[in-house]
Amino acid sequence: MAARLFVLNGPNLNMLGLREPGLYGRATLEHVEAECRRTATEVGFDLFFGQTSAEHQLVDWVHDAVRQEAVVVINPAAYSFTSVALLDALRMLERPVVEVHITNIHARDAVYRNSLISSVADAVIAGAGTYGYELAIRAIARLAEPAPI
Amino acid sequence: MAARLFVLNGPNLNMLGLREPGLYGRATLEHVEAECRRTATEVGFDLFFGQTSAEHQLVDWVHDAVRQEAVVVINPAAYSFTSVALLDALRMLERPVVEVHITNIHARDAVYRNSLISSVADAVIAGAGTYGYELAIRAIARLAEPAPI
Amino acid sequence: MAARLFVLNGPNLNMLGLREPGLYGRATLEHVEAECRRTATEVGFDLFFGQTSAEHQLVDWVHDAVRQEAVVVINPAAYSFTSVALLDALRMLERPVVEVHITNIHARDAVYRNSLISSVADAVIAGAGTYGYELAIRAIARLAEPAPI
Amino acid sequence: MAARLFVLNGPNLNMLGLREPGLYGRATLEHVEAECRRTATEVGFDLFFGQTSAEHQLVDWVHDAVRQEAVVVINPAAYSFTSVALLDALRMLERPVVEVHITNIHARDAVYRNSLISSVADAVIAGAGTYGYELAIRAIARLAEPAPI
Amino acid sequence: MAARLFVLNGPNLNMLGLREPGLYGRATLEHVEAECRRTATEVGFDLFFGQTSAEHQLVDWVHDAVRQEAVVVINPAAYSFTSVALLDALRMLERPVVEVHITNIHARDAVYRNSLISSVADAVIAGAGTYGYELAIRAIARLAEPAPI
Amino acid sequence: MAARLFVLNGPNLNMLGLREPGLYGRATLEHVEAECRRTATEVGFDLFFGQTSAEHQLVDWVHDAVRQEAVVVINPAAYSFTSVALLDALRMLERPVVEVHITNIHARDAVYRNSLISSVADAVIAGAGTYGYELAIRAIARLAEPAPI
Amino acid sequence: MAARLFVLNGPNLNMLGLREPGLYGRATLEHVEAECRRTATEVGFDLFFGQTSAEHQLVDWVHDAVRQEAVVVINPAAYSFTSVALLDALRMLERPVVEVHITNIHARDAVYRNSLISSVADAVIAGAGTYGYELAIRAIARLAEPAPI
Amino acid sequence: MAARLFVLNGPNLNMLGLREPGLYGRATLEHVEAECRRTATEVGFDLFFGQTSAEHQLVDWVHDAVRQEAVVVINPAAYSFTSVALLDALRMLERPVVEVHITNIHARDAVYRNSLISSVADAVIAGAGTYGYELAIRAIARLAEPAPI
Amino acid sequence: MAARLFVLNGPNLNMLGLREPGLYGRATLEHVEAECRRTATEVGFDLFFGQTSAEHQLVDWVHDAVRQEAVVVINPAAYSFTSVALLDALRMLERPVVEVHITNIHARDAVYRNSLISSVADAVIAGAGTYGYELAIRAIARLAEPAPI
Amino acid sequence: MAARLFVLNGPNLNMLGLREPGLYGRATLEHVEAECRRTATEVGFDLFFGQTSAEHQLVDWVHDAVRQEAVVVINPAAYSFTSVALLDALRMLERPVVEVHITNIHARDAVYRNSLISSVADAVIAGAGTYGYELAIRAIARLAEPAPI
Amino acid sequence: MAARLFVLNGPNLNMLGLREPGLYGRATLEHVEAECRRTATEVGFDLFFGQTSAEHQLVDWVHDAVRQEAVVVINPAAYSFTSVALLDALRMLERPVVEVHITNIHARDAVYRNSLISSVADAVIAGAGTYGYELAIRAIARLAEPAPI
Amino acid sequence: MAARLFVLNGPNLNMLGLREPGLYGRATLEHVEAECRRTATEVGFDLFFGQTSAEHQLVDWVHDAVRQEAVVVINPAAYSFTSVALLDALRMLERPVVEVHITNIHARDAVYRNSLISSVADAVIAGAGTYGYELAIRAIARLAEPAPI
Repeated sequence: MAARLFVLNGPNLNMLGLREPGLYGRATLEHVEAECRRTATEVGFDLFFGQTSAEHQLVDWVHDAVRQEAVVVINPAAYSFTSVALLDALRMLERPVVEVHITNIHARDAVYRNSLISSVADAVIAGAGTYGYELAIRAIARLAEPAPI
Repeated sequence: MAARLFVLNGPNLNMLGLREPGLYGRATLEHVEAECRRTATEVGFDLFFGQTSAEHQLVDWVHDAVRQEAVVVINPAAYSFTSVALLDALRMLERPVVEVHITNIHARDAVYRNSLISSVADAVIAGAGTYGYELAIRAIARLAEPAPI
Repeated sequence: MAARLFVLNGPNLNMLGLREPGLYGRATLEHVEAECRRTATEVGFDLFFGQTSAEHQLVDWVHDAVRQEAVVVINPAAYSFTSVALLDALRMLERPVVEVHITNIHARDAVYRNSLISSVADAVIAGAGTYGYELAIRAIARLAEPAPI
Repeated sequence: MAARLFVLNGPNLNMLGLREPGLYGRATLEHVEAECRRTATEVGFDLFFGQTSAEHQLVDWVHDAVRQEAVVVINPAAYSFTSVALLDALRMLERPVVEVHITNIHARDAVYRNSLISSVADAVIAGAGTYGYELAIRAIARLAEPAPI
Repeated sequence: MAARLFVLNGPNLNMLGLREPGLYGRATLEHVEAECRRTATEVGFDLFFGQTSAEHQLVDWVHDAVRQEAVVVINPAAYSFTSVALLDALRMLERPVVEVHITNIHARDAVYRNSLISSVADAVIAGAGTYGYELAIRAIARLAEPAPI
Repeated sequence: MAARLFVLNGPNLNMLGLREPGLYGRATLEHVEAECRRTATEVGFDLFFGQTSAEHQLVDWVHDAVRQEAVVVINPAAYSFTSVALLDALRMLERPVVEVHITNIHARDAVYRNSLISSVADAVIAGAGTYGYELAIRAIARLAEPAPI
Repeated sequence: MAARLFVLNGPNLNMLGLREPGLYGRATLEHVEAECRRTATEVGFDLFFGQTSAEHQLVDWVHDAVRQEAVVVINPAAYSFTSVALLDALRMLERPVVEVHITNIHARDAVYRNSLISSVADAVIAGAGTYGYELAIRAIARLAEPAPI
Repeated sequence: MAARLFVLNGPNLNMLGLREPGLYGRATLEHVEAECRRTATEVGFDLFFGQTSAEHQLVDWVHDAVRQEAVVVINPAAYSFTSVALLDALRMLERPVVEVHITNIHARDAVYRNSLISSVADAVIAGAGTYGYELAIRAIARLAEPAPI
Repeated sequence: MAARLFVLNGPNLNMLGLREPGLYGRATLEHVEAECRRTATEVGFDLFFGQTSAEHQLVDWVHDAVRQEAVVVINPAAYSFTSVALLDALRMLERPVVEVHITNIHARDAVYRNSLISSVADAVIAGAGTYGYELAIRAIARLAEPAPI
Repeated sequence: MAARLFVLNGPNLNMLGLREPGLYGRATLEHVEAECRRTATEVGFDLFFGQTSAEHQLVDWVHDAVRQEAVVVINPAAYSFTSVALLDALRMLERPVVEVHITNIHARDAVYRNSLISSVADAVIAGAGTYGYELAIRAIARLAEPAPI
Repeated sequence: MAARLFVLNGPNLNMLGLREPGLYGRATLEHVEAECRRTATEVGFDLFFGQTSAEHQLVDWVHDAVRQEAVVVINPAAYSFTSVALLDALRMLERPVVEVHITNIHARDAVYRNSLISSVADAVIAGAGTYGYELAIRAIARLAEPAPI
Repeated sequence: MAARLFVLNGPNLNMLGLREPGLYGRATLEHVEAECRRTATEVGFDLFFGQTSAEHQLVDWVHDAVRQEAVVVINPAAYSFTSVALLDALRMLERPVVEVHITNIHARDAVYRNSLISSVADAVIAGAGTYGYELAIRAIARLAEPAPI
């Protein structure tokens, strides 16, 4: 049976393609989901893909991932910087977590520079555009392998 | 003619495999180089791979990259956190730069948390182990494509 | 056709009149809505007026405003100080935004003194009581005019 | 008629028993609720017991407590550290509030050390495990007595 | 007899129209004075309008306002950020004070972000251009009314 | 044989009842001792109760507690905020420690907000008035039980 | 010939008696001058007494004091906290300087707590009300004596 | 009956005359006591004069002053900067407190610049040498008079 | 027609020669003016040379420079560190500005280390003594040339 | 006659051997004293060896050392980080002072990292275990020699 | 015999002309060297001109300057902000040092704003473009003259 | 076979004897090496002694020490405060490391006060002059013994 993968997206990502396209690109979230589905299939994951602007919905999805022993790729967007609730939820996961950001948050304004979530992620990928989701899924496939890299 | 790719490695990375293997893994730098060569060939780059513990050597290699209009994947290791000279050198590059770290620096001690280099990198990949080099090369191939992602 | 105006209210503002009346006054939110409607009509806006204690609802309403090319008067209340999600949503708006606060937040405790939202607002009005909503609507009418003031 | 007591629980507390049991213990929230009910009855309170991962739901419950002139025992969990909305809601209460934490937050990481909520609580109990809820209810019974302690 | 209103302007505002017009607009201070006179008459104030680049002149005018029991609309310009002398003078006023800024200072460089004066103002209006003076006079008319808003 | 309990009180607590009664209440330390004795007997502890304004006396008493393998309830008062000597002494204890404060220190001035001692206490109870001592003894009884809560 | 004493007063002190009398008392500056004259005569100084709200006037008076080799008692008021120009002027004096404040600035808001001037004063007297001027003159008489105290 | 005055001296002041005489002068503490006795008699106080290097002794003396409704002149020396216990003790006093320092602490190293005690003192006199004790006694005589200065 | 050059001097510079000569040298301001006149003539500028201890006078002179399209050499002295008014005035200049300091401010006390003015100057020369004025005039002659250096 | 050496030990060092032996080792203070006596004799010092948990006792011993013109080896333990009184006492010593710590305080928690005492010590030895006392005595013998090292 | 002058250049300056020409200009380092040679000859210095990206090479050159009693003009580039080794080397020089920067570092990003080297330089010249080297050589000629300026 | 000892010296230490002799003494590095050789022989170590101003050379020598399982005495000089590369290299060592400084860095300017290296050293010796090298070798001999001290 295929391992379970959650790809979770935080606030404003539903506007992808419309949202500051010079910064975030013109690909829509539907396009991102399709790419994720393609890569997940390739590396053998059963995918759940969700987006929400509600902090508690992200928390609930992480609870689901805990119960299903899923691995998680998460773009927490704005909640990267403010959500201790999400941080606490991810702490419960015993499987790998990869955090992905479309832009290079480390080169942006101070408010976007310190992700709380990074402290519990196994890996962080930022600035590779929407292609970062594919890289994140490939990374988590490696991190989830029995032998350490 | 194949585009030019520099993969540059900073101080202590020559000790890979010996260096805190619980943290950095058991793969040696020779192994990393071989993997990079394989991926570079796959995506069509002509690779220069170097490692040095000297800050000025990294600076000189970046000058070479500037002159050769190369793209750069760099693991600046300790110089991520201290080298303004390297930061200034990378500022001269007009082609993409991807910063890679074997460990998730964002989850480590304060001294390792703020990479100066990230502010001039296009993308940052941290915590994917030595597999991060392959991801970085794939990312830079995308970033170097004519149309933005 | 009249231009579209969103007047958005954040958490606890539904308790207006009950909430620390020495600080916030005795007018209720219904009263504020009526005043806004009167002024909006006078200056020629078609009004949407909403209140919510949910961060994601504010984010969603801003998405609606983006799609409708509306101008926005917003009293983000507590989310002024904590919501990067709301900040990101407002960044997408290309029309004027006026932030309004019933009290003079700049004269209150440290936790209330730095509104994240102010950095993306065109104008900020604080401390004029509920009358500040009327001033905000008049201000946005001016800011939305073709020629700059 | 019995006085009204709200026992409110913030994000991730629904996972109690599963959540880092070395830190939070193995008791479930159902067990906590039963213990609270037993103690509330003993000291003469009519209990409402709620848990939510949504900030706005906590805010709404506090509004209900304001309207019912209830006393409040609250474990805001992650929102202790981030929710100005909850802080503002609790400011409206004129009856006692006791903040409870299962772990000793003062001995944890920096991110967990400064509860915003403590500045409006009458008392704070941290580190007594789930037994802290019983202590909190006993404390609020005392604080709600006519004569000050 | 009409109540007394002082509209006071700090350093460099005499250059309005010439001064960074992309930021401050093209209206001159004479134009602002005329607009203030029109609005003051409308809401029933007897106006004194002054501009100075000298800190002590602003302090002296506030002393006059104290003696005449006037209300004060003040654009302290640069002295907002540096003048404790002006802060102390305004503390003596028992009538309302409204601070006005042509630009949204809260969205500018750090040096312009924390007005000392805001801590003693009743209301603050920033970013509405020179139209902010009219809004400030309307606000002070309301704040000076017997019944609180 | 009954387990040993130390209830230790720091500087100025001998003035309880006289000391800012609006803040600390009117109960004297003799009253507190009597209440502690009653509760200690109920839960089966053999009590030592001491008060001192001397930092070294507190340190010495903690040394005694270490030697007697006692549990400790401590109200370090002012030394909470300044005594590394007491912190070091308490670090030696392998039995539970509960810190108690009569007032809610977390809601007071900055100087009273960060207790050094909390980092080595198992639990902290603040703001429950002198009744907090009884709660602390009940808490320590639970914490000292063989099975974790 | 009598030694020369300058008693200099900064901004807003001309309003003494009117200015927040609960804080500054009801004595006027004329009264203070008379008291200074009486004490100066008693201890044998020839007095210059001045008040100004202009920073440059204080600077000029200190230049006069430098040229006349006078001792200086100064209440810089608001300029204590902001004037590097006054600090530089006082640095030139080789005779004693005593700084006096009517209120205890050390117990006031942060903005009033760190006097720049104190770093070049020989003595500082704060909180003794207007009587502090007499104390300051007596202190400077001692400090100006040939043998050190 | 004469009012009671406590003149209290903190650590190292017993070494006066020996201690860094270039900074503290050559007068001994016996000399200071004699001067205090002379001034206390002149202004009608019954004097207790004490010195100790023990923080708890200072605390105990302040308790005595509280019980005797004495006024207090205190040179807390090093405890100015570190003793919250002394701060708490002085908070209990309802009569005036004057803090005195032989040197101008405001012009010394950072460690000596922020006296905790100043926040509860009525007046502070620093830098007038040992003559500051006489000034402090004269100041407290004024502050203790029925009518405010 | 010769281009216009303003050489502006801030507070206390009128005392040059008298003012801490070990630090500032023994040359007087008259000497500096003569040297400036000589150099200005040599490089072809028509010179205005002014000194004032009044912040507003400096602001007014900068306004004059703006109107005359002059280049400006300024030694703002103490106002370097405190005057936002001067900073705002200089922002209006579209011609080059060179800031000069007689001493090396970067090697002095913290209060003298961060010039606000430097952020709007084209060049900064510090520590070359009064000879720095000549260097500044030569620098501004170069900066004012059509082709960039 | 042999020169005088004081070896002074601060709070909790009486518990050596019992106190966190993984960190401080298993040697007792009696053992340390014996080792010190052996080394002192070897290098020709007449030894006083003391331990106390009372800050004032350390201060008094330093006063004794001042009077006896002794050299001082001191392990101030917790008072390293909090005692300005001890700092002031040591400032009076004109002979060498060597500070010793059993553990490497520079590698411990923030609270243990900045010794106030180090600023007045001639040398500091940390982390050499109890053997550090012997090294400290050897170091002070060298530092006390007439010719500088 | 001509006095010796070292003109030292730090990392990336070999790329001058290529490196961000909008910021650094189009002159090459060869051009700068030629200009330096011309000016050095004019003012009578025997010139050594070097550039290196290696921190240790700069340190070694400063050692040479120490041994040859040379004066030093240095553009430490990135090492201005990070090299304590260079700072320590320059501390050994007893002859004048002038620091030069092509751009006005004081107006750039925070990372470039605080030069460590400035604290040991006699003079600092920034923002005059490559012409700053000539000014620096003229300044050092003055600073090296027997009589102070 | 004798155990291996590396004594490593950082930048500027080659100038010992010439370098600020009032601070560092007049002994040369050759003298230090001779003393180290004498002590190493005495305690049974086979010595490598090196000095370099190049950060990478220190890193390489530490790599050699790692490979040879040597113990390390290191005076990193300026690199103590800036070199994360050296910190990372030393982290690989599993044998003891003792850091030595000729001066008491803890009593110097802020830039010299926090050694990064101390966090990975076993012991730190500062301020004992060049004699500190001998103490460091004796300390490392103890630390390298099988049984802990």
